[in-house]
Amino acid sequence: MKHDWKALFSDNIREYGGYSIGKIMALCNDPEIISLAGGLPSPDMFPKEGIRTASARLLEENLEAVFQYSPVPGEASLMEAVTDYLAADNIGIKKDNLVITSSGQHGLDIIGRVLLNPGDTVLLDRPTFAGAIVAFQMQRPRFAGVNLQPDGSDIIVYRKKIADLRKAGQTPKFIYVVPDFQNPTGITMSLEKREALLDLSYETGILIVEDSPYRAFRYQGETVPAIYSLDQQRDGDHVVGLYTFSKLFCPGIRTGFAIGPPAVIQAMTNVKEGNLLNTPKYNQDLCTAFLRDMNIDAHLATCRTFYGRKLKVFLATMERYFPEKTGVTWTRPEGGLFLWVTLPAHIDTKKLFYEAIKFKVAFVPGEVFYGENPENNHMRVNFSYASEEQLAEAIKRLADCISNQL
Amino acid sequence: MKHDWKALFSDNIREYGGYSIGKIMALCNDPEIISLAGGLPSPDMFPKEGIRTASARLLEENLEAVFQYSPVPGEASLMEAVTDYLAADNIGIKKDNLVITSSGQHGLDIIGRVLLNPGDTVLLDRPTFAGAIVAFQMQRPRFAGVNLQPDGSDIIVYRKKIADLRKAGQTPKFIYVVPDFQNPTGITMSLEKREALLDLSYETGILIVEDSPYRAFRYQGETVPAIYSLDQQRDGDHVVGLYTFSKLFCPGIRTGFAIGPPAVIQAMTNVKEGNLLNTPKYNQDLCTAFLRDMNIDAHLATCRTFYGRKLKVFLATMERYFPEKTGVTWTRPEGGLFLWVTLPAHIDTKKLFYEAIKFKVAFVPGEVFYGENPENNHMRVNFSYASEEQLAEAIKRLADCISNQL
Repeated sequence: MKHDWKALFSDNIREYGGYSIGKIMALCNDPEIISLAGGLPSPDMFPKEGIRTASARLLEENLEAVFQYSPVPGEASLMEAVTDYLAADNIGIKKDNLVITSSGQHGLDIIGRVLLNPGDTVLLDRPTFAGAIVAFQMQRPRFAGVNLQPDGSDIIVYRKKIADLRKAGQTPKFIYVVPDFQNPTGITMSLEKREALLDLSYETGILIVEDSPYRAFRYQGETVPAIYSLDQQRDGDHVVGLYTFSKLFCPGIRTGFAIGPPAVIQAMTNVKEGNLLNTPKYNQDLCTAFLRDMNIDAHLATCRTFYGRKLKVFLATMERYFPEKTGVTWTRPEGGLFLWVTLPAHIDTKKLFYEAIKFKVAFVPGEVFYGENPENNHMRVNFSYASEEQLAEAIKRLADCISNQL
Repeated sequence: MKHDWKALFSDNIREYGGYSIGKIMALCNDPEIISLAGGLPSPDMFPKEGIRTASARLLEENLEAVFQYSPVPGEASLMEAVTDYLAADNIGIKKDNLVITSSGQHGLDIIGRVLLNPGDTVLLDRPTFAGAIVAFQMQRPRFAGVNLQPDGSDIIVYRKKIADLRKAGQTPKFIYVVPDFQNPTGITMSLEKREALLDLSYETGILIVEDSPYRAFRYQGETVPAIYSLDQQRDGDHVVGLYTFSKLFCPGIRTGFAIGPPAVIQAMTNVKEGNLLNTPKYNQDLCTAFLRDMNIDAHLATCRTFYGRKLKVFLATMERYFPEKTGVTWTRPEGGLFLWVTLPAHIDTKKLFYEAIKFKVAFVPGEVFYGENPENNHMRVNFSYASEEQLAEAIKRLADCISNQL
C-alpha cells in the first residue's frame, strides 16, 4: 500500500513549498553567472583571524562545556554582550526581554508560532522580506499588504486598513516591518513614521514586529532610532525586535536574538525549547567573542566603507546603463545589502529571470516579496557579494538582457 | 494600555509550557547534588583531539565557506557520510531520503509540524520520551498511550487501540516509538515486535516514527535490526527514522538527521527552511569529520565499555540498597543512558523529587513521560554522566530518602 502523502500532511504544511528564492538560487550554480540574487554578505568581511583565535581558545580551554547541552534561552555571556550592544543603540533590556535564536529566520518562525492562528491577519508592507512571509506562512495567516513609500511604511493607509479589517472581524495580530534598509527595497522608515507607527500601535493595541538585520550597515546619512527604543520612551511592551548575527558577523554562525515584552519572550523561549532546545554554545561563544574581543567598531567601520563603495559603484553604473528613457527606476538606499529595481509594467521579472540566466546574470524576481497580489515588474538586486568589477559587468549584462524587452 | 498576552497568543502556544524537565534541572544547580536527572553524555567521551584537529583544519582551509549560508537539506559531504554510516546498519538510503536537522529534538518538532493538525492522534508508549511529547504538543494533538512491556511496545493493544480510535473517527497519524534502549526505560523492542509493528503499519497505513538516539550504545546482547531496515525488506515507505549526533558524538554540536520517504523528507526540508534555513556548516563539517576521520569504531567501543561499566555499577548498587522487601523495582537495560525505577504505588515521585534535593540527589519524576494519564510512582535515572563513585553515592542517598517514605 502506498501512502497518499498530501492527505497525511497537516493543513498548515500540505501546500507549503518553503522558500522559493532557494529554488531559484539552485539555477545560479553556473560559475559564469554573476549572481545579484543572494543575500550573502561578502566573506571578505568575515573577521577571520578573530574567529580562528576565539575558536582555538574555546576548544583549548572549554571544550567539554562548549560541546555539552546548554541553557535554552542562551548563554549568559552572550546575553550580557547583546545587552551591552543594544545599550549603545539606546535600547535597554533585562534578561527576561531577551532570547538567543538560531538565526533571524528562526526568530521570525518562532514569533509566528507564538502569535498566529490559521486565518489570523498580519499587516505588512508591499513589498517586504520574503523570509518573513515564508516563516509566517507555516501558520497559514492572511497577509494584508500596504504599498511601501520612499520614506517607509504608509501609516495612513495602515490605519485605514486596520479599521477596515476590524469591521470584518480581522484585527491584525501584528504589524511586520523592516525599518532599516528594508529587504528587498533598501528603504529606511523616517523618524516621523516610526513615531506614527507607535501611535497606531498604542491606539489599536496591535503589536509591532521590528526586524533589524541590517541596522548596523548604514553607509551614509543619520541613524534613525530603533522603534524598540522609541517605544521605551513611552510605555514599552509594544515592540518585538528581531536581530541576527548573519550580516553583522557571518551567516554560517546561525545565531540571532529576539527582544520584547517578557511574556512574549517567555513564550518564544518555550517554543524554542520544543523546537530544538539550545542554540549551539560554540556558535554563541563565537558571537560573544565577536562582540567583546574582535574590535566590533573597527569591524563595522570596515564593513560600512567596503559595502558603501560597492553601493556607490552599483548606483553609478545603473545611471549609466539605464538612462531615463528606458523607464527603469530603482531605489537609492543609504545602507543594507539590497536595492529594488522597477521595470516598465509589461515586463514580468519571473520570465526575465530565465532570460537573464542566458546572459549570465541573476536577480530575485520581485513577486516573492509580496504577501498577497504580487506585482511582477520588480527585481531585488544584492550589491554586497559580487566584486565591484562584477557588479558593473552584471549591470551591463542586465541592460543587454532588458533592452530586448523594452 | 497593557496587552492581554494570553488572548494574543496562538491557540497552539497559549498554554504551552515547554519542557518541564528543563525547569526541574534548574533546581539541581547546587554542586553538592549528584544529578541523575539529565540526559547528558559524559564529556569524558567527547573525542577532544579529533574535534580540535578537525576544527583547526576547517578554519584554516575553508573558513569563508564554513561561515557562509549553506544548503538547507544539509552538506553533501555529511549526507554522504551519514549514508555510509547507515549502510553499516543495513539501512540503504538515497539523497532524497535524508535531511540534516539541528538536533534530534528538531527532527521531532519538524515531523510533528508536517503531520499533525490540532486534535490528531499520536499513538505512543506509556511511558515514552518526554521531548517527543513536548515537540508534538505544539500541534495540540491527542496522545493515545499503551503500556510498554519489558520487550517493547504492546502491539496487540496497539492494534485494539487503533480499531477503537478508528471507530471514533480518530485514526492515528503516526505511531511514535524509541525501539532501542528507550528513553526513559532503557527497554529494547524485540525483533518479533518490530515485525509485528510493521505488519500493523502495513495493515492500517499508519506511519511509524522510529526515534533512534541511543541505537549505537549497546553494552551487551545482540543488536536488533532497525525498524527502518526491516521495512526496506518489504515495500518500504512506512517508517520515518530520527537520529542525532548528541549521544554518538556530543550534544553541543546540535546536529542530527531524519530519514524517510522522499515526500515526507521534502516536506520536512521545506519546514526546516522556513524554520531556520540551514544547520550551521561548521557543526555539520565536524560531524562529517567525526564519521570519517575520528575512528568511529574505536570511539564507539570506548563509549560502550565506559557506559557499560557505569550501568553495571549502577545495577549492582541498586541490588544492594533496594532489596526485594522495599518493593522498589527497576529495568535492566542492555544499553542507552537511562533506566526506570518503580516505587510502591503510594509514593509520588514529584513530591519525592523535592525531598531528594534535600538529600543532594536528583532524578526526573516519571510523570513527564506520559502523553496522557501520567503514573506518579516512577522515576527516570541517568547513569551516563556521573562518575562510578558518584553513581553509588547517589543510590545510597536515594535509598536514605526513599526509606523515609516506605
